[in-house]
Amino acid sequence: MSSKHLYPPVEHVHLTNKMSVNDLVQQFKAAGVMCSGRVARAVDIGETMFNHRECTIFLGVAGAMIPGGMKHVIADLLTMGASVFVTTGAMLTHDLVEALGHKHMKGSPYIDDKLLHKNNIVRMYDSYMSSAVYEDLEDFFALHFDELATKSTVKEMLWCLGSKVLAEDSLLRICADRKIPLFCPALADSGLGLMIWGQLAKGKKMPIPAFDDLKEILQIAWNAKQCGVWYVGGGVPKNFIQQTMQFAPKGASFGIQITTDRPESGGSSGAELREGISWGKMDYSAHYVDVPLDATVALPLIVAALKERLGSPSPRS
Amino acid sequence: MSSKHLYPPVEHVHLTNKMSVNDLVQQFKAAGVMCSGRVARAVDIGETMFNHRECTIFLGVAGAMIPGGMKHVIADLLTMGASVFVTTGAMLTHDLVEALGHKHMKGSPYIDDKLLHKNNIVRMYDSYMSSAVYEDLEDFFALHFDELATKSTVKEMLWCLGSKVLAEDSLLRICADRKIPLFCPALADSGLGLMIWGQLAKGKKMPIPAFDDLKEILQIAWNAKQCGVWYVGGGVPKNFIQQTMQFAPKGASFGIQITTDRPESGGSSGAELREGISWGKMDYSAHYVDVPLDATVALPLIVAALKERLGSPSPRS
Amino acid sequence: MSSKHLYPPVEHVHLTNKMSVNDLVQQFKAAGVMCSGRVARAVDIGETMFNHRECTIFLGVAGAMIPGGMKHVIADLLTMGASVFVTTGAMLTHDLVEALGHKHMKGSPYIDDKLLHKNNIVRMYDSYMSSAVYEDLEDFFALHFDELATKSTVKEMLWCLGSKVLAEDSLLRICADRKIPLFCPALADSGLGLMIWGQLAKGKKMPIPAFDDLKEILQIAWNAKQCGVWYVGGGVPKNFIQQTMQFAPKGASFGIQITTDRPESGGSSGAELREGISWGKMDYSAHYVDVPLDATVALPLIVAALKERLGSPSPRS
Amino acid sequence: MSSKHLYPPVEHVHLTNKMSVNDLVQQFKAAGVMCSGRVARAVDIGETMFNHRECTIFLGVAGAMIPGGMKHVIADLLTMGASVFVTTGAMLTHDLVEALGHKHMKGSPYIDDKLLHKNNIVRMYDSYMSSAVYEDLEDFFALHFDELATKSTVKEMLWCLGSKVLAEDSLLRICADRKIPLFCPALADSGLGLMIWGQLAKGKKMPIPAFDDLKEILQIAWNAKQCGVWYVGGGVPKNFIQQTMQFAPKGASFGIQITTDRPESGGSSGAELREGISWGKMDYSAHYVDVPLDATVALPLIVAALKERLGSPSPRS
Repeated sequence: MSSKHLYPPVEHVHLTNKMSVNDLVQQFKAAGVMCSGRVARAVDIGETMFNHRECTIFLGVAGAMIPGGMKHVIADLLTMGASVFVTTGAMLTHDLVEALGHKHMKGSPYIDDKLLHKNNIVRMYDSYMSSAVYEDLEDFFALHFDELATKSTVKEMLWCLGSKVLAEDSLLRICADRKIPLFCPALADSGLGLMIWGQLAKGKKMPIPAFDDLKEILQIAWNAKQCGVWYVGGGVPKNFIQQTMQFAPKGASFGIQITTDRPESGGSSGAELREGISWGKMDYSAHYVDVPLDATVALPLIVAALKERLGSPSPRS
Repeated sequence: MSSKHLYPPVEHVHLTNKMSVNDLVQQFKAAGVMCSGRVARAVDIGETMFNHRECTIFLGVAGAMIPGGMKHVIADLLTMGASVFVTTGAMLTHDLVEALGHKHMKGSPYIDDKLLHKNNIVRMYDSYMSSAVYEDLEDFFALHFDELATKSTVKEMLWCLGSKVLAEDSLLRICADRKIPLFCPALADSGLGLMIWGQLAKGKKMPIPAFDDLKEILQIAWNAKQCGVWYVGGGVPKNFIQQTMQFAPKGASFGIQITTDRPESGGSSGAELREGISWGKMDYSAHYVDVPLDATVALPLIVAALKERLGSPSPRS
Repeated sequence: MSSKHLYPPVEHVHLTNKMSVNDLVQQFKAAGVMCSGRVARAVDIGETMFNHRECTIFLGVAGAMIPGGMKHVIADLLTMGASVFVTTGAMLTHDLVEALGHKHMKGSPYIDDKLLHKNNIVRMYDSYMSSAVYEDLEDFFALHFDELATKSTVKEMLWCLGSKVLAEDSLLRICADRKIPLFCPALADSGLGLMIWGQLAKGKKMPIPAFDDLKEILQIAWNAKQCGVWYVGGGVPKNFIQQTMQFAPKGASFGIQITTDRPESGGSSGAELREGISWGKMDYSAHYVDVPLDATVALPLIVAALKERLGSPSPRS
Repeated sequence: MSSKHLYPPVEHVHLTNKMSVNDLVQQFKAAGVMCSGRVARAVDIGETMFNHRECTIFLGVAGAMIPGGMKHVIADLLTMGASVFVTTGAMLTHDLVEALGHKHMKGSPYIDDKLLHKNNIVRMYDSYMSSAVYEDLEDFFALHFDELATKSTVKEMLWCLGSKVLAEDSLLRICADRKIPLFCPALADSGLGLMIWGQLAKGKKMPIPAFDDLKEILQIAWNAKQCGVWYVGGGVPKNFIQQTMQFAPKGASFGIQITTDRPESGGSSGAELREGISWGKMDYSAHYVDVPLDATVALPLIVAALKERLGSPSPRS
């Protein structure tokens, strides 16, 4: 039997006028190889995950997604039915900064950083932020700290924080409103952490234990019938969910990972999802895909196609 | 004056149901930073280039674009009005292989390559090809070699080759039909090169000089009123066009570069377009953008949006 | 004046027989450009930092450095006089696993992960570990948990943990013995975190607050006369030190960063050190270098040259 | 049997004072995983290749190695006994520029390129060159063109060019002196190509055929008892040697590849060496290693260790 019968053909991507994003992704699927093929596979896996009412979806997001204009895309994943959200302190800081009325700004990566510093602007590659935002953050924490400090876990404290936020597109607010468990294992490592320190330095206390959130996320995995993981970037959000999957009945059944980190260094951030099988973090028969693309392109591309397929409201929302 | 008035805000990408690819790119433009912002900028620059009837557009493409399903997207750029096409011998080999009726196949990067070899399948990451294609290539060259060998430049020989091809979606055929100057400075370094060698080994001659194509491409640049460059991948196609720009009246006025190569190593493939200003390859006031994304995603995304904006037929075709 | 007088020449790297590592780095310095030039610059900056008795050196290390055979190189930096160590929970887990008598093993990245899982082996790219180590970790935590749980900060708890360790090359032990402040903001996100959870699940308590370590590291920066930062990988260790530098009198005066992460995504891990100037994390006149190289090569190369220059004992030890 | 008996342990890299480069590499071998393990493996494979008198070693080098200070390291590989050298036109241009008395200069990647252009300086990342070199190149070609134009292949022409060069450290000169076959399939794509064009534009002729060098390199492979390949960067040099290996009795028996290009895009430059097995370019039982590291660090590290092991003169020289 000749090889042409063994393997399906690569059909060339055919672009049509005013094609929708999902039309483009369907063309990527017909080609089916290399990076565009993986984007298509991610949409298929996402569709299966989100159509499956009993799948507990753990979303882990790291990186400068809010300075990069991706807040609403992440919000889409939350409102479409992500079950758990794990993120960095920086993400929540950027979210709160915007919720208090500030915006990130379009800048240049080639600027003289001394000049920015003199003008009270901080830089994240080509996205700028006024350092004046910290005054508003301080006021916000001064106002709410006493209530926040009564909470028993970081998650409860973040939900409380989210409930104080007026902006409806805030990720903190969305998690609070929808009771989406929100974990941030390294919150001390962020602007929000510094705001808390500012109150501690004034003699206040926040005795939230460092390890008690673990109990809740592991319980969620333990109780899950089926799990899916969706990673944007690596770092703590990915690793925290991955270790949680060891407590799911059979690891994750679905996985999407968007990162340009490389596997060769052996770190968690760049590890291919298949490595998780050795750890029991991924099921032997899991459907998963690694998408080695910048997230500010890959994520909106995948989510736009997914929204088109799922319709509105999504099956889980 | 506060910084919020100095810099435009990053507006979050907003995904709507059944949005077109260009709708998505317009959202990327509103965000305007990081990788998605660069994709939007590439579409804007491409639109300007292709709307400008007097702009000579030099398209340089390297990499496994045909095994990756991108043949029709490159064909779109040619039929929309690219003026000059520079590519690798591998690209033209893959093109001719498909024109002779073969297809690339969807495979896996984790296969045992010994097994593939035993089954006469060759691998380009996760795209496979039957090694039986070489017999058809040999027959094709045996049939046409005497005519090909009479040509005075590689470009003329490639046009002749393209004129023998029946498949209408062949890049060789499109260049031949539309008289798009087609340059391949390292054609010897390819399957087509080996086919020519096969005829030389039988005692035939192909005395096409190694350096005479230079005269034609430099003349095209010399005569151009305005130049635009569009690179997919680096290698010889990019470098050959870049050196040509030194002969254009003021270097290139427009530039799009899609590559994941990094600048730090100092090589041409990863060099940022702005480096070309020091060489006189880019005009001081050129509009250009480096898109550090995998080409099998970036190129169709950009070209689909461009087609939507330009309409059909495009202003230049 | 011609350009040849404006810029120093690139002198070609000259290799001699049995040259020492520092001889090689001196050759890199003579060349002085691209990646090898940056390695040379890192050694120069490291030499200045470590020769400067009043410089507080913050070492942040992420990634699979212990599975990668780099434990003793990190230990060298600690014993040569690093002032503060910030790392991941995974690093400390790997350290404790080895301290309890286990070794990582040389494997392959192409193995079938199902097979590893069936054989109770977990994989970090091409480094393997027996999953049996977790039983020993559990026993160790069961034995010492009650004492660990009395500590008031994560740092104190980790010092206590280090004091229980017999292996002299353990990073935990070295930090405990030398009273090097050791911070791990996301300890819950690691095997050690899971061990703590295991005790919590049995009804025990560990009420160490999540935010109190912040007070200590910020105080160290506040009191410092001069600061140097040294990053291996990004993630929480880098970001936690970077935010701390905002509290140092004038940000960091010296900086070395070894990472292959890219700046374009805007995340902290890939941000160039110069970006820190806009934030006040780096001093305007700081000496710093970004080394975009894999850490398992860059770090030993730099530290070997540094040891040769500083002699033994080092000026600070 | 427990896993600890199945796989050798990762021994931590131990740095000693004034250790030689090969001592360091031996430590990398003891660790044996991730990037440093691959550097060690490259030195072992290089040692085997160069100790083997009957191994025909094909060296392919691309990238800005001469602007990066690596000329003497490449020269070491040639004088130690590389059998065939395939490179880019840019490499030979940089080589000739230096042979005519010019030097590359240490610059900055953050400079304003307009300023450089106004000062007649061209930039390759952070390495600068005076654009005045082109006048000397023109004079050199004007003087020797008539003799060069009589040659029957590019290789013969390049040997002739090398014989005119006075500088003993010139790669062109070394190849000419030692009769190392030197191939440059895309010479037209370079400064040297432009010099030839300059003479053609004056009405001179250089009728060297584009495809006749193929006969010689394929014959060398055909006659070889055993082949080794050593790639620094990808591009035409790698691909040209790889296609040649299809004509060696059993493909290459040894392979070293140093590149940071990634395999996912399917291009030749980033393809892992194992992919070559499917093509018959690598022997089933070949010893090979991919070193994903910047070449300006990896190459001198590997060659310094190799020189130390082989002694001087090397077994093949």
